[in-house]
Amino acid sequence: MIRVLLVHDVRILRCGLAALVGSEPDMEIEAVPGKEATRSARALRADVCVADADVTGRLPLHELAGPARTPHDPLGSGRQVPRRLLVLVSQHCPGALRRALDAGARGFVCKDALPEQLVAGIRRVAAGERFVDNALAGTVLRASEVPLSARELTVLSAAAEGAGITEIARRLGLSAGTVRNYMSAITRKTGARNRVDAIRISQGAGWL
Amino acid sequence: MIRVLLVHDVRILRCGLAALVGSEPDMEIEAVPGKEATRSARALRADVCVADADVTGRLPLHELAGPARTPHDPLGSGRQVPRRLLVLVSQHCPGALRRALDAGARGFVCKDALPEQLVAGIRRVAAGERFVDNALAGTVLRASEVPLSARELTVLSAAAEGAGITEIARRLGLSAGTVRNYMSAITRKTGARNRVDAIRISQGAGWL
Repeated sequence: MIRVLLVHDVRILRCGLAALVGSEPDMEIEAVPGKEATRSARALRADVCVADADVTGRLPLHELAGPARTPHDPLGSGRQVPRRLLVLVSQHCPGALRRALDAGARGFVCKDALPEQLVAGIRRVAAGERFVDNALAGTVLRASEVPLSARELTVLSAAAEGAGITEIARRLGLSAGTVRNYMSAITRKTGARNRVDAIRISQGAGWL
Repeated sequence: MIRVLLVHDVRILRCGLAALVGSEPDMEIEAVPGKEATRSARALRADVCVADADVTGRLPLHELAGPARTPHDPLGSGRQVPRRLLVLVSQHCPGALRRALDAGARGFVCKDALPEQLVAGIRRVAAGERFVDNALAGTVLRASEVPLSARELTVLSAAAEGAGITEIARRLGLSAGTVRNYMSAITRKTGARNRVDAIRISQGAGWL
């Protein structure tokens, strides 16, 4: 039995995804909003977490990707089966794919895929393999060209939502100075004139 | 049998919604992306269209709400059963609710509702009644306070996506001068200093 944790903030859509996967005889589903994801992933001891990468800028994807193997336990040694993260991602959002990749996601299913594709992806990731939807081949290439790091993308996403330096610092648990440093790096790397310009360029390129 | 047309641009979510509603014995579902919605609504002769109001700024909601009763046929006279529109809308988006209301939507279901609520809403709207999810009571009140018309909200949504005057005019089939007039009215009504300020104010208030 594969224990699947589905993460989506919109309940009616979350229930819909659960209905798609829940009819599979070898899968056991729980569906929760983003803010309950980390706790539920632990409590359920989920084998695979499925999350929507586009709308989860604030979701701690790396926590859903499960505990990293420590130097003391390099092979996982079977005592603790690592959770595996599969993300739903849009073809037009290489930035979201990049963020998920950096967080340790092992499966990538296109949001325009058929349900069968999602189910196949979950089985492959549960079996310890990697899975990349064919439809995302181009997006993976473009993700490798995104000039911003996962952290910079998170900072810029918050700025694009209208948050100021102080608010971004609070949300991400950083100092205001650090956020300012990130913003300078972002502006430089995107070749922008200022913060608003960096948001515009990044949205246009699909990085945000 | 109630013929339901489900409209959502993201296929995997569309399939999920269809799975939720499709298990009802009295409903027949077709699910399509926004760009096929108007044609499919006609071809299927749908009784109820279900659309996501938040992500369908470009969707001709009024066309999905079905043909208006003309002065020559004030009662619909049974020859052409009017389609009825039910929208899924977030509690935090009074602007989207306002737009759907102006377009002639008759059902409003919260995106955080349980599937049973959506199914109940579809049955009520199919029977010719209006349906407003209890969870949306506050949003309906706030929608009545949105100072912008449905058209102005559409113009401002396009501007918030980064489209310039020319691009907005092209998309909406208007002249550049008309779009400029809309933008002036929007800036005035929102008490903004300029276009960017109007976007910021409107997003903060949940109008966009």
